[in-house]
Amino acid sequence: MAEQVVYVGNKPVMNYVLATLTQLNEGADEVVIKARGRAISRAVDVAEIVRNRFMPGVQVKEIKIDTEELESEQGRRSNVSTIEIVLAKG
Amino acid sequence: MAEQVVYVGNKPVMNYVLATLTQLNEGADEVVIKARGRAISRAVDVAEIVRNRFMPGVQVKEIKIDTEELESEQGRRSNVSTIEIVLAKG
Repeated sequence: MAEQVVYVGNKPVMNYVLATLTQLNEGADEVVIKARGRAISRAVDVAEIVRNRFMPGVQVKEIKIDTEELESEQGRRSNVSTIEIVLAKG
Repeated sequence: MAEQVVYVGNKPVMNYVLATLTQLNEGADEVVIKARGRAISRAVDVAEIVRNRFMPGVQVKEIKIDTEELESEQGRRSNVSTIEIVLAKG
């Protein structure tokens, strides 16, 4: 498994930490932590907790930010920021 | 002026966009957008709005995440995630 993705939403941060650790322990070389909007702060928490508290050998390989356009059911468009944090085994 | 810093807190996002644009227009080659905790999402918004809506020539040069240890007045320690987004003129 080259690369796995963990989507961070509104659940408690440890849910996503556990999901990331599981991917890494099951053989993934890289895990991409993705989030958008207010969940971006939580995605950074996930990356920091994984690498500081659980897997010191894991490094932040790349961080990308971007913007997605959302369209509501009423047809209104709005922009939301996104982040992708790539964690890789050292 | 080589590098200027904009600290993103809890004010409306456009306050920090304006601060960043001002630094870039006054001659800074780079602006570092810093935030911690829940303000991290807002820092990403600032970077995205500056580069998509106001200054297309500006690029995200580097993004760093880290953890700071805070100590409360009662002596309790807690960790908070931080982000630094370096915007640079192309």
